[in-house]
Amino acid sequence: MAERKRILTGIRPTGSLHLGHYAGALKQWVELQDDYECFFLIADYQVSDYVDDIDHVRRSVWEVALDWLAVGLDPQHGHYVIESQVPQHAELSVLLSWYLPLGPLRKNPTLKSEMEDLERTRKSVPVGFFIYPLMQIANILMPRAHLVPVGDDQLPHIELTRDVAERFNRETGVDVFPLPEARLGKVTRLVGLDGDAKMSKSKGNTINLKDDAETVRRKVMSMFTDPNHLRKEDPGRVEGNPVFMYHDAFNPDVDDVANMKEHYQRGGLGDVEVKKKLIVAIDNLLDPMRERRAHYEARPKLVQEALEAGCKAGNAAADATIDDVRRALKLDYFDRGMPAAEK
Amino acid sequence: MAERKRILTGIRPTGSLHLGHYAGALKQWVELQDDYECFFLIADYQVSDYVDDIDHVRRSVWEVALDWLAVGLDPQHGHYVIESQVPQHAELSVLLSWYLPLGPLRKNPTLKSEMEDLERTRKSVPVGFFIYPLMQIANILMPRAHLVPVGDDQLPHIELTRDVAERFNRETGVDVFPLPEARLGKVTRLVGLDGDAKMSKSKGNTINLKDDAETVRRKVMSMFTDPNHLRKEDPGRVEGNPVFMYHDAFNPDVDDVANMKEHYQRGGLGDVEVKKKLIVAIDNLLDPMRERRAHYEARPKLVQEALEAGCKAGNAAADATIDDVRRALKLDYFDRGMPAAEK
Repeated sequence: MAERKRILTGIRPTGSLHLGHYAGALKQWVELQDDYECFFLIADYQVSDYVDDIDHVRRSVWEVALDWLAVGLDPQHGHYVIESQVPQHAELSVLLSWYLPLGPLRKNPTLKSEMEDLERTRKSVPVGFFIYPLMQIANILMPRAHLVPVGDDQLPHIELTRDVAERFNRETGVDVFPLPEARLGKVTRLVGLDGDAKMSKSKGNTINLKDDAETVRRKVMSMFTDPNHLRKEDPGRVEGNPVFMYHDAFNPDVDDVANMKEHYQRGGLGDVEVKKKLIVAIDNLLDPMRERRAHYEARPKLVQEALEAGCKAGNAAADATIDDVRRALKLDYFDRGMPAAEK
Repeated sequence: MAERKRILTGIRPTGSLHLGHYAGALKQWVELQDDYECFFLIADYQVSDYVDDIDHVRRSVWEVALDWLAVGLDPQHGHYVIESQVPQHAELSVLLSWYLPLGPLRKNPTLKSEMEDLERTRKSVPVGFFIYPLMQIANILMPRAHLVPVGDDQLPHIELTRDVAERFNRETGVDVFPLPEARLGKVTRLVGLDGDAKMSKSKGNTINLKDDAETVRRKVMSMFTDPNHLRKEDPGRVEGNPVFMYHDAFNPDVDDVANMKEHYQRGGLGDVEVKKKLIVAIDNLLDPMRERRAHYEARPKLVQEALEAGCKAGNAAADATIDDVRRALKLDYFDRGMPAAEK
């Protein structure tokens, strides 16, 4: 079997996953897992903003694993890696910190606005938050990933990762790291149930992958639509209408979606009817996930085994990388023995 | 045997040690080693400013070990620990980064001025440099040191370390770390041969512990004295005169030093005579170090053994600490098993 190229991708364990995660990432991961050796990382070093609720992080690790199993990420095929269970991630972060200039962290607009949010809510930003881009660089370089599936907003981060890898290789004179490339896929950025730009747990505007049919029904029925579409007979707007955006994302019957849009714009199609069809589409998507989830929830040992096997694979890849890194930096003092004294 | 309290102290491997290190630190370490269990750390994670000359760092690790053996730090009694050979230091740094606010790093005046220096000479500051206070906090907490011998300029850093330890203990509800205390000793801040405020290799104004007698003679003869003391007969100044400051630091014959000062101030005592006596005093200090150094230089295996034994002890202490840290943070997922799902 030819060696498959490696992919690194991951998520922070800060809660259950929702349809936004599915449309924006998980769907693509499932498609990629056959062609690549995938390292799916649960990034539990990067939770400094949850320092007062580590129990929640801990539970979220299992929730994420369950969600991944439910969507069909095959742990026989890819590796479920928990960052903290491969502490070489920390070692690599420290060693790569020599090669990452402070400037890009200070100037990173995303990081800056996230830090301002944190300062508003928690009064102080932990150092761990400031250095999470460094940890993510170590995440990517640890399994020597060739590809990282990202949205185009994350391209600068991949560029930074390449810079650090390139600089390490050049300064040490050893090609330890391949330069990772971004893999831009067709992803959908899903708005919240309330039409907010982002589905996010803190805003309570999500449909979670683990929601049951009744919860989905209730949430879809409460969704925002066109605020001016007051009576069924009125013409309604389709653009920016969350319900139709969800149909685009999750309803495979594109002809029916096109018909509905036309009818809605013309007038005469009520929100309730459009929502009922969306409920069906979402349930069709979630039903197989619910089945798989039920299977694993009844067999927690299998979840733990998936994680243990993944961490074992993560550790093996990390050991190989760290060995090469230490050798390249000549930090393997005892193997090399005593150097000639410097005059 | 009653358990001895623990001390953590260390140095960055960036060159050979000199009389400034001896007067400012090593002399006290030698005195402390009988009463405490000492961890002597060679901090080779904290060398991001030497990233373009890692060979120098590597050689400096051995130089520092030789210098320590030469001054009489007994590796049977304390532990010579190389930071990178105990990679748990990196893991602890990452985990403690959750509890260290960014503010003190941003505002630290020493760090700020060091970073400005770096920016001038190297154009950019690596993240590794910015986070070295974090690594030093991990250094101190790793062996759960009770005491850290420092000068009073480092008191704020010990305070910061206590804050992080206290916050970790409080947030996790487990007393993992004792709160370390500063141990202020009588230390001498040694000026350079040229009268510069600091002896430092980069200024070429040092007497190294490994300098031979001829080098010491030449360097002392070249030392700055009172610039207005042109003729032997003239009265000379003793305050701020490097030669007399060195006498105060290294000449145990305090009566003779007092006599020389009086004679010098009165006039009639030449610089050469004062310097000759200083050479004797320094050689008396360095001779036993030279003997011990020669012994170990001829037996490099002993140096390596001292380092290997020290790293082993460092690893044992680190394993115990990291186990407790992971348990306190409940990151020991697999030992605990599957948590109840969060509703």
